[in-house]
Amino acid sequence: MDIGLQHQSNNPFAYPLGQKVVRLVVQVHRPYRMQEIRVHYGDKYETTYTDVLTMQGAGQGTHFDYFVADVPVPTRRLKYAFEVVLAENVSQWFGEMGWARERDEAVPFYIPYICKRDVFTVPDWVDQTVAYQIFPERFANGNPLLTPDGACGWYDTPTSTSIHGGDLAGIRQRLDYLHELGIRLIYLTPIFRAGSNHKYDTADYFEIDPQFGTKDDLRALVADAHARGMRVVLDAVLNHCGYSFRPFQDVIRNGRRSRYWDWFFIEGDEIDTEAVNYETFATKLRNMPKLNLAHPEVERYMLKVAEYWLEECDIDGWRLDVANEIDHVFWRKFRETIKRLKPDALIIGEVWHNSLPWLQGDQFDGVMNYPLRECILDLFVRGRVTEDEFAKRVTDWQFAYPAQAQRAMLNLLGSHDTERIRTLAGGSVAAVVQAMALLMTAPGIPMIYYGDEIGMQGGADPLCRGGMVWDDDRRDKALLDVVKRLVKLRLSEPALAGGLMRVECAEPGLLRYVR
Amino acid sequence: MDIGLQHQSNNPFAYPLGQKVVRLVVQVHRPYRMQEIRVHYGDKYETTYTDVLTMQGAGQGTHFDYFVADVPVPTRRLKYAFEVVLAENVSQWFGEMGWARERDEAVPFYIPYICKRDVFTVPDWVDQTVAYQIFPERFANGNPLLTPDGACGWYDTPTSTSIHGGDLAGIRQRLDYLHELGIRLIYLTPIFRAGSNHKYDTADYFEIDPQFGTKDDLRALVADAHARGMRVVLDAVLNHCGYSFRPFQDVIRNGRRSRYWDWFFIEGDEIDTEAVNYETFATKLRNMPKLNLAHPEVERYMLKVAEYWLEECDIDGWRLDVANEIDHVFWRKFRETIKRLKPDALIIGEVWHNSLPWLQGDQFDGVMNYPLRECILDLFVRGRVTEDEFAKRVTDWQFAYPAQAQRAMLNLLGSHDTERIRTLAGGSVAAVVQAMALLMTAPGIPMIYYGDEIGMQGGADPLCRGGMVWDDDRRDKALLDVVKRLVKLRLSEPALAGGLMRVECAEPGLLRYVR
Ligand SMILES: [Ca+2]
Ligand SMILES: [Ca+2]
Repeated sequence: MDIGLQHQSNNPFAYPLGQKVVRLVVQVHRPYRMQEIRVHYGDKYETTYTDVLTMQGAGQGTHFDYFVADVPVPTRRLKYAFEVVLAENVSQWFGEMGWARERDEAVPFYIPYICKRDVFTVPDWVDQTVAYQIFPERFANGNPLLTPDGACGWYDTPTSTSIHGGDLAGIRQRLDYLHELGIRLIYLTPIFRAGSNHKYDTADYFEIDPQFGTKDDLRALVADAHARGMRVVLDAVLNHCGYSFRPFQDVIRNGRRSRYWDWFFIEGDEIDTEAVNYETFATKLRNMPKLNLAHPEVERYMLKVAEYWLEECDIDGWRLDVANEIDHVFWRKFRETIKRLKPDALIIGEVWHNSLPWLQGDQFDGVMNYPLRECILDLFVRGRVTEDEFAKRVTDWQFAYPAQAQRAMLNLLGSHDTERIRTLAGGSVAAVVQAMALLMTAPGIPMIYYGDEIGMQGGADPLCRGGMVWDDDRRDKALLDVVKRLVKLRLSEPALAGGLMRVECAEPGLLRYVR
Repeated sequence: MDIGLQHQSNNPFAYPLGQKVVRLVVQVHRPYRMQEIRVHYGDKYETTYTDVLTMQGAGQGTHFDYFVADVPVPTRRLKYAFEVVLAENVSQWFGEMGWARERDEAVPFYIPYICKRDVFTVPDWVDQTVAYQIFPERFANGNPLLTPDGACGWYDTPTSTSIHGGDLAGIRQRLDYLHELGIRLIYLTPIFRAGSNHKYDTADYFEIDPQFGTKDDLRALVADAHARGMRVVLDAVLNHCGYSFRPFQDVIRNGRRSRYWDWFFIEGDEIDTEAVNYETFATKLRNMPKLNLAHPEVERYMLKVAEYWLEECDIDGWRLDVANEIDHVFWRKFRETIKRLKPDALIIGEVWHNSLPWLQGDQFDGVMNYPLRECILDLFVRGRVTEDEFAKRVTDWQFAYPAQAQRAMLNLLGSHDTERIRTLAGGSVAAVVQAMALLMTAPGIPMIYYGDEIGMQGGADPLCRGGMVWDDDRRDKALLDVVKRLVKLRLSEPALAGGLMRVECAEPGLLRYVR
């Protein structure tokens, strides 16, 4: 017998959408032939199944077809098994132990009890949001007095060390631009005191980088954003600190006698910043010592950081840098801390690969959706896949995580860590528009990387981090106009909020999808 | 193309065994033909794979063959992809996005960083343990003074309400018997004050049931067990309490004004113990009101209970009743609490179905292994499956959970919740011996249900809870002798500690397995 069906009674195949409804997803291996799938279900403590539902086809993946049913669970306790109808009056049954010929031979699957705390919830507002990513050093220079000596020209080609002078005041002055574009969520890459221009090497987690402004500037920015119906999310760089971080400096000065020695992972009895005998982000990046978040003091310190900016400046959540190299224990505490303070705060992890372990409801709401970006680029930019392959891959990714996470994915065409879409597309506006159109109509939160909406170009880091173009004659206004209309469509069309995307190849060269 | 391979970069396909080694498991769909599978791997931040390992065949499941490799990860950061060798110099590649023709087209899988707190550890002692389950009311009457009036005769047929007089002193007096049998772990069903004979309806979580003895009796029992190299695990019934539990009584008396109202799930504005308008264990069992463990006070209370008995009486862990109807948030805190107090304490959940959501390293060490029991019964007792089907199902279950959990599974032929093995076997000693032999040689902790070793019989609850037979002439001494030898074999043969069981049908009627 062919493998036929695939299902398990846990993520991403079975999970509560609420305390009284469970989503079931079945994968049917394509060679397998059948008429329909029914789910028979009832309370766990009933002797038999009391109800039946026919599952709905939900799209074709690379190897599997997907079928979905949302099963009501009034008692919060579910048992179920699948009836696969092969022909009229000919069925076989599929349960936890695999295939059976008769219903009562199939071992049931169980969702034993839907506990409130186990239900994955994401903020409701994510369904009606378009996001915008800002690299603060490069978006707008609102306060030239803060711009350090030695800064280059705003439009100079960025280098790994160039300073262009962007700041929080600049962002605040441009809120109307973002508002007019339809933006409802702003994500700022790091703004805390740090040595580099990207600020991913934090020196002080409790201070705004003086080049960017002050806490009052952040407060004002957030307040003005809120007044326009926009939220603000900051970047939490907790995996590692910067070289100047006081505890790391203390270790350099005092060695093993430092009370911060165990905040880091140091090999041997003294620290050697030349040989880099300590763990860092990536490989031997001496300026980014990895933090030992399992140390109770470090854990408490970083949870405090997360709380602090919510309380002090009323931010609306965090994007988590290198989220996949920090332990799950920490992230669970992080979520508990954040959601207790602000239940509708957003938590987005930076994970480039399959993120299911972080998207179980106990850690992140969503992640930066690089796999979707790969699909989009492969189809519209690189021409590496057919519409059919694209549709199948996108369908597979839609069922890789619980539905709640799909609503909170941060979908993107590019970021400060990638080449810009316009550059990848060899300058082609058509490709950019197609990619934007898909981005704006897919489930999840579409995010525009600053400047992509006006056709900015730029290769890999640092070139993708150019000064935002504000000169009218250097902006692609036609593209901007299209992007605005797409954003408007996204926010005005209820069908585009939440839900799945049923996508397929209509005919070669034509993609059809239903939301 | 056939589906071929199945793998994901998380449980139960990929997980750390330690901070510097990852176990990878690949399922190969049986129709798929290939010569071998190699895993190519290296540090996540390297531009290419630096090493290669050939995966080892680890058995045949129902639909899939299993291949395993333990990959060294000196930097704690792993990327990998699989090379499937179809013929000499003909390979295809398998990565996170599926198949590719060339190595560099395969999208790697990642274990981005092995954090210490994410590594699943179970107590080392589980590898050298045989357990014994005692239903305290029925094992031995050591203190007749505690036996309530109206108790029945020790060997009377048990009913749902009969009292036979067993107690902690009785268990303590029989420790030498258990020690001689080779037992190293004793699991007691509940012993706290409760109304029923089974004590699953707790009235007071901080008191020993007076019929069973006192805290001093428990202290003495645990101390004497420890002196003989035996550990003691108690039963934690935290999903629900008993009718007499003081907070529940307070709610009955004071209704909504009770400060314990929210400790339970009550519909409406007053409690109705006749109509049972509150959630209970199972369906409307008025004597077992379900507890709201998400309420901070209840959570704290029950964590305190868990701590209390470790601290007061030095017990060695907990078996968790109805573990699958309590939320994961609570169990994570439970594990943290227990393991902080006693790192080598054992945590065993009662989950009858697939338990992967509880066996990720953050909740239980193992669960009561009812699925293995089903396999054993189907082969040796019910004759419902062939040796081949048995071998395949057992193999599938071995790869359903991380290897650490497999070491800590509580394997059983029966419990207080099932018919006894001898009864199921229609009295056949041969069947019981075969089942025992498998139990004692399988990965996990073999557990004997009291009296099964001397051939006690008993149908479904309450009949399976008879008074332990201490009369020499009513004990099956031949069986006891075999069981003793099997226990001895288990404890003396290093090959039987930990590891996998490679099991297959050697020829019809003959099972072969390698440990
Ligand atoms: Ca400035
Ligand atoms: Ca007694």
